[in-house]
Amino acid sequence: MTVETSAHTIMERCNLLASYSEEPGRLTRRFATPALRQANATVAEWMRAAGMTVRQDHIGNVIGRYEADRGPFGGHAQTKTLLIGSHLDTVRDAGKYDGQLGVLTALACVELLHERNQRLPFALEVLAFADEEGLRYHTTYLGSRVVAGTFEPDLLRLTDNAGVTMAEAIRSFGGNPDALSQSKRRSDDLLGYVEVHIEQGPVLESLNLPVGVVSAITGSSRMLVTFTGQAGHAGTVPMSARHDALCAAAEFILAAEKLARSQPGLVATIGQLTVHPGASNVIPGEVILSLDVRHQSDSILEDACQQLQRQAYQISEARELSLTWQHVQKYDMTPCKPYFTQLLAQSIEAAGYPAHFLASGAGHDGNTMSTIAPIAMLFVRCKGGISHHPDEAITTEDVTVALKVMEHFLTLLAQKREQGQIS
Amino acid sequence: MTVETSAHTIMERCNLLASYSEEPGRLTRRFATPALRQANATVAEWMRAAGMTVRQDHIGNVIGRYEADRGPFGGHAQTKTLLIGSHLDTVRDAGKYDGQLGVLTALACVELLHERNQRLPFALEVLAFADEEGLRYHTTYLGSRVVAGTFEPDLLRLTDNAGVTMAEAIRSFGGNPDALSQSKRRSDDLLGYVEVHIEQGPVLESLNLPVGVVSAITGSSRMLVTFTGQAGHAGTVPMSARHDALCAAAEFILAAEKLARSQPGLVATIGQLTVHPGASNVIPGEVILSLDVRHQSDSILEDACQQLQRQAYQISEARELSLTWQHVQKYDMTPCKPYFTQLLAQSIEAAGYPAHFLASGAGHDGNTMSTIAPIAMLFVRCKGGISHHPDEAITTEDVTVALKVMEHFLTLLAQKREQGQIS
Repeated sequence: MTVETSAHTIMERCNLLASYSEEPGRLTRRFATPALRQANATVAEWMRAAGMTVRQDHIGNVIGRYEADRGPFGGHAQTKTLLIGSHLDTVRDAGKYDGQLGVLTALACVELLHERNQRLPFALEVLAFADEEGLRYHTTYLGSRVVAGTFEPDLLRLTDNAGVTMAEAIRSFGGNPDALSQSKRRSDDLLGYVEVHIEQGPVLESLNLPVGVVSAITGSSRMLVTFTGQAGHAGTVPMSARHDALCAAAEFILAAEKLARSQPGLVATIGQLTVHPGASNVIPGEVILSLDVRHQSDSILEDACQQLQRQAYQISEARELSLTWQHVQKYDMTPCKPYFTQLLAQSIEAAGYPAHFLASGAGHDGNTMSTIAPIAMLFVRCKGGISHHPDEAITTEDVTVALKVMEHFLTLLAQKREQGQIS
Repeated sequence: MTVETSAHTIMERCNLLASYSEEPGRLTRRFATPALRQANATVAEWMRAAGMTVRQDHIGNVIGRYEADRGPFGGHAQTKTLLIGSHLDTVRDAGKYDGQLGVLTALACVELLHERNQRLPFALEVLAFADEEGLRYHTTYLGSRVVAGTFEPDLLRLTDNAGVTMAEAIRSFGGNPDALSQSKRRSDDLLGYVEVHIEQGPVLESLNLPVGVVSAITGSSRMLVTFTGQAGHAGTVPMSARHDALCAAAEFILAAEKLARSQPGLVATIGQLTVHPGASNVIPGEVILSLDVRHQSDSILEDACQQLQRQAYQISEARELSLTWQHVQKYDMTPCKPYFTQLLAQSIEAAGYPAHFLASGAGHDGNTMSTIAPIAMLFVRCKGGISHHPDEAITTEDVTVALKVMEHFLTLLAQKREQGQIS
């Protein structure tokens, strides 16, 4: 099997996995759904065929382990594990590479080793996280949070749109919500966590590069904002007597857009918005919206959030509405480990390309995994920078490069490890 | 039974019917749901007890008939029917008087006649329409459209949020979607259609009047507007490269508010708004919103709609989005019949109050019923002008006045009819 053949297989598998969806005609695969169960089962089968021992942890992550070379002394004591992976859940109406590509590239690395009967001086584990996007419970990284041990048990009481609690969802998925802490990985067993992912932005395409090294994951803040006004009849309440929650929300949406446009690198997104009661002849009494703000600088991010909160209060006050401003998630900037990124850069150059470093505007499981292990990420160019959309596209050629880089990276890491340069 | 006792009964029955809901803790009763079935059955039972023959027509309206006096010659030939009623469906999270009050007041009129063993020189039919608000299929007046014969069979293919077609819903409600045209009423059998309804506005309260005569129902236009942009990742697509459908919608919402505020009597409402794909970390690719515009002058209404359509196109063009502008419903101004409104005014004065005429900003079944019969409406004061909201409130005293007015109105109409003054 050549690397080219393997890249082809990755592309075919992305297509197959994309057919496991909750919705006909488009890819939506939330945490702990039958669609995710199909994806997990299929990936687990491929893992086994690649010589890995496979298990599903208590939240539903699939983990395939490829044992280390026992070494000249059969020594288990020093055996550490390198984690490689990504997630198998998706956003609504998703593309087929965000998440899937990382899992399948990691799997392909092991398949190439297995075919050559080759072991490394460390174990490899391929992780397929059950939730990164957070679509079902509106809170991200459930899978990696359990692995990193940062999962807060309070989350188990969250309910999805159908009223199913997270605890129930985990149980029906074959997991155990009461034993999640047992799925935490011990930091001193781990060499690191490495992830291959599509860039989800336009940088590599504009530089005409197939891959790039992630220097850091930028910080992000996620809020839930509720404007509460007064519902009323659309025909009988004069404009002057209205306290329309949607008009207030509209003002806020434009204020967020304006602020983000005024500051280079800042992005602000209102991706969800629900109107209550939500009938065409009723004035909106309540609007709940999500606000996602990101910037590479934690202080600029913090300033922007505070400014938007002030503006939301001003808008509410002027319209005699009430406001609830709820912080849902906050991620500080997460740097990637320099000794990993240098090895990735070296591997890109070995593949015949200049090594470009770039920040990730999107959050990733690396955010949480960084709390227990050094992390690194390799970005793959995607068409038009489009992601979280069925138009997501990558080329087999770029996947081939990514796979070559990962192979070389593992070889270099193995050498360093054997030379005792990395503990 | 005094009129006061009867008014008390109306209030108690409003409470009881309000407990037949699709949602715990709040009143939501859409067309052809089990909750509506409970309300229909209960009202039908009360009708029977009041000496009426009861049937449910092919769309699910409950109709109770109280026969006319046979007259000195037992003549059936001239026997006409006066329809009195309102609707039993509700908006989401509704109040308990919009619709219900009209049905129960009509029923109470018959109960008072029945108790006195009194017949009128015309038959009375109490109508309880199965759909006026249009919550389930986003199109209003299903019940009265069938009675008026203006129901368009194409509507039967509409689906609700759960994918159930209207035809299926009608069938499972015991109706017959293929026989709706048989439920049309013949115009020459009808004396008219009269409805008692809460004002849903602040006018009567500000004038300190319990009831008022509706002069006309103002015109309204309902549109469905779709902004289509480009979904993308909330962290990686820079603000300058976005085509955010929600930002465009926000601009449009504020434009509609501004226009409506600038023109006395004009109201514009965006009551429903759906974001696709609808995840907090995805830039909205598509937004669908409802637009409801009303004004007493048909030409001002038409101008306002055209202006908003132009603005929506301008916003879409500036943001490089595409726009779909779909007319859903259009109602011209509907005048109430002067000979009915004069009798209502006379009856209000007989009850000891000045007769105030006012326009209805809300649409009513009278809009459709006016195509087959002269219409009239009596408004009852409601607290703070609030409607379509659980805070909807009326007093038993005001209901007593409304019932006295209706009784007197029927007496006057009977006299006129006997004197041959109304054909």
